Amino acid sequence: MAGCYAVFAWEIMVKKYKKTDGVSYALGATVTMELLNRRGEYARCVYVSPKSDVDAVTEKAKTLGVPVVASEKAFNILSPKENCFVIGEFEKFDAKICGERNHIVLVNPSNSGNLGTIIRDVAAFDSVDLVVIRPSADPFDPKTVRASMGAVFGINFELFDSFEAYAEKYGKREILPFMLDGLPFAERDFAKDKKYALVFGNEATGLPREFSRYGGVKIEQSDKADSLNLATAVAIALYKISIQTR
Amino acid sequence: MAGCYAVFAWEIMVKKYKKTDGVSYALGATVTMELLNRRGEYARCVYVSPKSDVDAVTEKAKTLGVPVVASEKAFNILSPKENCFVIGEFEKFDAKICGERNHIVLVNPSNSGNLGTIIRDVAAFDSVDLVVIRPSADPFDPKTVRASMGAVFGINFELFDSFEAYAEKYGKREILPFMLDGLPFAERDFAKDKKYALVFGNEATGLPREFSRYGGVKIEQSDKADSLNLATAVAIALYKISIQTR
Repeated sequence: MAGCYAVFAWEIMVKKYKKTDGVSYALGATVTMELLNRRGEYARCVYVSPKSDVDAVTEKAKTLGVPVVASEKAFNILSPKENCFVIGEFEKFDAKICGERNHIVLVNPSNSGNLGTIIRDVAAFDSVDLVVIRPSADPFDPKTVRASMGAVFGINFELFDSFEAYAEKYGKREILPFMLDGLPFAERDFAKDKKYALVFGNEATGLPREFSRYGGVKIEQSDKADSLNLATAVAIALYKISIQTR
Repeated sequence: MAGCYAVFAWEIMVKKYKKTDGVSYALGATVTMELLNRRGEYARCVYVSPKSDVDAVTEKAKTLGVPVVASEKAFNILSPKENCFVIGEFEKFDAKICGERNHIVLVNPSNSGNLGTIIRDVAAFDSVDLVVIRPSADPFDPKTVRASMGAVFGINFELFDSFEAYAEKYGKREILPFMLDGLPFAERDFAKDKKYALVFGNEATGLPREFSRYGGVKIEQSDKADSLNLATAVAIALYKISIQTR
């Protein structure tokens, strides 16, 4: 009954996610399937709730040699309230960006749901890489992973400790900050043969004033709403640059 | 000590929100402030947590003659887990749309967070009215109200029991469904002197096939992500129609 021992051994290793952990978790069958399909080499284990019926995931996990553990305990620890029947445990990985592509740069994004939605949109258009400036929400947080619908396993992204550290490595491109006092975004076009970094600030505070030395653009809106949701602003910018540079 | 009696009388009326209720709740100081500023005539009461310090809201409520009740109980019932210190109770209201504007039509949206984000975006661009086809998430659900950041108090929206009922009343306009087999959205332009209904389906199932008789457009994306988040798709469409028809 080696299987029983394996179940036991894995089970006791599950603990609530912490940012400093080397592993994280893909919550749900869809997200776990993305993990196995795109970053299968980092998958450590798949937990399956005894309540579930998720053949495609367990088949794929077996093909990759990833242990499948039937256990309710992992769900109680990691996803006590959610309607989730599969969890994929994975090692955090590097998915370095490339200098050849345009970049979306998020300076200190604080909300993991927002970050996950943005990751999903970056994957949806597949034309830019994602840069995140710390301190920030954690791309590997199970909440981010879930909000991304697993898209975090399919995109290139890189974290930096400061915007300067990013600019030093990849700054040979036009830097375009999105700021409330910027020029109208609708009048701004993108060229195929140039490279851009579209820079967005924190959800509550926006970008620090010093970014205005790069110029800046503003997505036009009425005064009825406070300001655009970060994920909404990024989506609008992402769509335009994707269409104009494809 | 009439104030004490009032506190007691209001307190016992708070109960968990149900869709069939005639009242709902604005959770949080920002959202309650929007309620008081934009739909103050529907505000019934403002609850203030004894832990809070929210002078602007209580001042505004007093100006409008809306009772302010200091009570922890309302928070335990309506917002047990959230970091929320002000709740505004309001009567549901009509905010009928107008035939002169373009419309965003959501057919059976199911997620209140998504609906709230879309309401916020509709307010942000202030160029369209919102139509929701039932069954759907509830625009007055406190979760929707909160996700809208109070924008639900500033937009025009109307619910219909079927798309046909909507089309009968407001269908003298171009109906443009967003469908996965539609024509490229980037090649689609909007005229100032025409009226449009941009129609979006449910988050999981999209629009029923019969909508393809109206033609249809698709927001171009890569195959890396499943499909665009509903709120993202609406934001992209909303931005384009707002810019081109202003």
